[in-house]
Amino acid sequence: MNISKRISDMQFSPIRKLAPFADAARIKGVKVYHLNIGQPDIATPDTFFDALTSFDEAVLKYTDSQGINPLIDSFIKYYKEWNINFDKDEIMITNGGSEAILFALMGICDVGDEIIIPEPFYTNYNGFSEAAGVKVVPFLTKAEEGFHLPKKEEIVSKISNKTRAILISNPGNPTGVVYTYEEIRMLADIAKEHDIYIIADEVYREFVYDGLKFTSALYMEDILDRVILIDSISKRYSACGARIGLVASKNKELIHQILKLCQSRLCVPTIEQVAAANLINTPKKYFDEVKVEYEKRRNILHEGLSKIPGVICEKPTGAFYITAKLPIKNADDFAKWMLTDFSYDNKTVMFAPAEGFYATEGIGKDEIRLSYCLNTDDLSDAMKIFAIALSKYKELNRG
Amino acid sequence: MNISKRISDMQFSPIRKLAPFADAARIKGVKVYHLNIGQPDIATPDTFFDALTSFDEAVLKYTDSQGINPLIDSFIKYYKEWNINFDKDEIMITNGGSEAILFALMGICDVGDEIIIPEPFYTNYNGFSEAAGVKVVPFLTKAEEGFHLPKKEEIVSKISNKTRAILISNPGNPTGVVYTYEEIRMLADIAKEHDIYIIADEVYREFVYDGLKFTSALYMEDILDRVILIDSISKRYSACGARIGLVASKNKELIHQILKLCQSRLCVPTIEQVAAANLINTPKKYFDEVKVEYEKRRNILHEGLSKIPGVICEKPTGAFYITAKLPIKNADDFAKWMLTDFSYDNKTVMFAPAEGFYATEGIGKDEIRLSYCLNTDDLSDAMKIFAIALSKYKELNRG
Ligand SMILES: Cc1ncc(COP(=O)(O)O)c(C=O)c1O
Ligand SMILES: Cc1ncc(COP(=O)(O)O)c(C=O)c1O
Repeated sequence: MNISKRISDMQFSPIRKLAPFADAARIKGVKVYHLNIGQPDIATPDTFFDALTSFDEAVLKYTDSQGINPLIDSFIKYYKEWNINFDKDEIMITNGGSEAILFALMGICDVGDEIIIPEPFYTNYNGFSEAAGVKVVPFLTKAEEGFHLPKKEEIVSKISNKTRAILISNPGNPTGVVYTYEEIRMLADIAKEHDIYIIADEVYREFVYDGLKFTSALYMEDILDRVILIDSISKRYSACGARIGLVASKNKELIHQILKLCQSRLCVPTIEQVAAANLINTPKKYFDEVKVEYEKRRNILHEGLSKIPGVICEKPTGAFYITAKLPIKNADDFAKWMLTDFSYDNKTVMFAPAEGFYATEGIGKDEIRLSYCLNTDDLSDAMKIFAIALSKYKELNRG
Repeated sequence: MNISKRISDMQFSPIRKLAPFADAARIKGVKVYHLNIGQPDIATPDTFFDALTSFDEAVLKYTDSQGINPLIDSFIKYYKEWNINFDKDEIMITNGGSEAILFALMGICDVGDEIIIPEPFYTNYNGFSEAAGVKVVPFLTKAEEGFHLPKKEEIVSKISNKTRAILISNPGNPTGVVYTYEEIRMLADIAKEHDIYIIADEVYREFVYDGLKFTSALYMEDILDRVILIDSISKRYSACGARIGLVASKNKELIHQILKLCQSRLCVPTIEQVAAANLINTPKKYFDEVKVEYEKRRNILHEGLSKIPGVICEKPTGAFYITAKLPIKNADDFAKWMLTDFSYDNKTVMFAPAEGFYATEGIGKDEIRLSYCLNTDDLSDAMKIFAIALSKYKELNRG
């Protein structure tokens, strides 16, 4: 029976690909430290669960396709704190940031159109693009440069008459990069000069360290009709399972058109919307503590990596990921080996080979992504084990 | 700024289009009976809310992209009662039946491929098809024939070398038709002879009246690898706001490929999955009562329509909709007029003009869809008012 080329061409999640090997390790009694997934371990705020359990309607109805008013209002209020002003008709609630990305792509791209993305990038950008029939055109950012943007010419050289947008994750998954004001300004200039959009995936907005200031694409006042914001409560409130996100733009016509896509899937889960609307009442302390915690973890991870000879890894300043270049040839093999052949003190570490985060064939084979959604003690232990494993692996000359 | 042709070509929900006029009527103090939406008014079972409030994990995590095991197991058990056997790797949990439809289309169709659908049909089939770049090829079913399928030749004549599937809703939205065994058998033969799939949207499976037997496309043993099932708890358990559905097929390879689409959007809401998994423990009595109630309503609606001269409306036997042909030219105008210019005893009725359920331009302009998600007293009153309105409207010679 016919299976579409569209779906056959898609890749399975490179992050989840190693899961069977991790399962096998666990069955053998090996403890696996999971540095492979971006699933925060921080508790979801009580504000969410309080509202959830207070839901008392007898019939669990569809909501408006755009989302419920209290939730939209709560986001408007939230953005105000970031000096971003949205009206109600500029926001559509979505099934996580995930659906927001799909809707943004579908809203501005026809089949065959192109999107420019700095690689390495969040792998699901690929999946959504394939689903929408959109071509991803990557431009390279490098471990040696902390994955900051290349020169303007390099980005511009990727633009064709089919290009509809530049898509960025800021702060970055999988790199942890936080773009400077100048970098965002440069993207704004490119967007303006070449009449394209910026899709700004800012789901890690809160996760910026070392006292740096976050620059939203929405701070570029002269291109507001070209900015499409992707957002989500998943990481911000450690509420990944709620599946609440949004797509927003000061370009009201675009948002109005995206309403059609929202209508076709009827609505986003009702109770989760009600619960998410109460997150705005989460004490500010919650974020402060979360940030301190992640910053500590980032330091442990980065220090651990820096001590290993041959590892290239600038200190990332955002999100909860580090992408590092290792002194080996095949990080995929190394990742598998650590689950199947290696253990130290009956423990091992799981991480994501970075190859899957690149669109260009053959790049990133010597890189890995580590996430730090793990408490500091375990993280320290994991880094110790990781270093031992890498040196053992190199001894075996497998690298 | 560029907006995609794909999204510009989509239509806004024809059901929600009249909403502003209904709002205006309400503001004028007119009571509006809503026969326009398929939002059940029956209480969601306690089993759902019990499990929901028992959720006690501190971190609201992503689940597996396929869905949580207890939920998949509960569906397997549910289908067994319908003599349908599914293995775990034949089911993907989705964001409502809505996402299941999108994933089914994307899984078997590339851009430009075609899907055959009996019209009138659930309008969102259009939306998902546009989103996926798939062409809808309709064939006509008629009010006079109770919207049963036409002759085999008529359906076959729509098949081209780009046809990938026949998509049906059984029981039918917006028609209330329940296909006979012979009709489903005919579709199975067509699928086999022309090497295409059947996408069987059976979200109204429970809603079959007059003691009729429901025939699932999955009862056709010889074409099981060609059947893609769309299902949902929305209507069955009056849990529309939960957004839990599934796509399933005995074609394991197809389901395995669809996992990629599931992975790209990470997962379906966690707590809603946990709650939905407990629905299997809903007492059978719940359905029996629901069915008796809907059957009563169907009777009220059908009797009401039958008494009006010139209305063509066979008694539908399923779902909770009736599509009727009225002795007027422009049902859209009539629907609007009832909200803006008419009221009786300070009350009026809102319904969906059926034109939006047809893909063929110009058909269905004299038809409407009424849903019966309203208690019997209100429904009787609504039908009385509807009859008065129609006669008044005809007097005005607007028809
Ligand atoms: C950069 C980025 N964008 C979007 C998402 C989507 O998250 P969600 O759909 O849970 O909001 C993720 C999740 O990991 C992400 O890393
Ligand atoms: C025929 C049909 N299929 C699918 C759906 C989708 O419902 P949901 O996404 O709530 O499961 C509906 C909703 O009205 C419908 O009528």
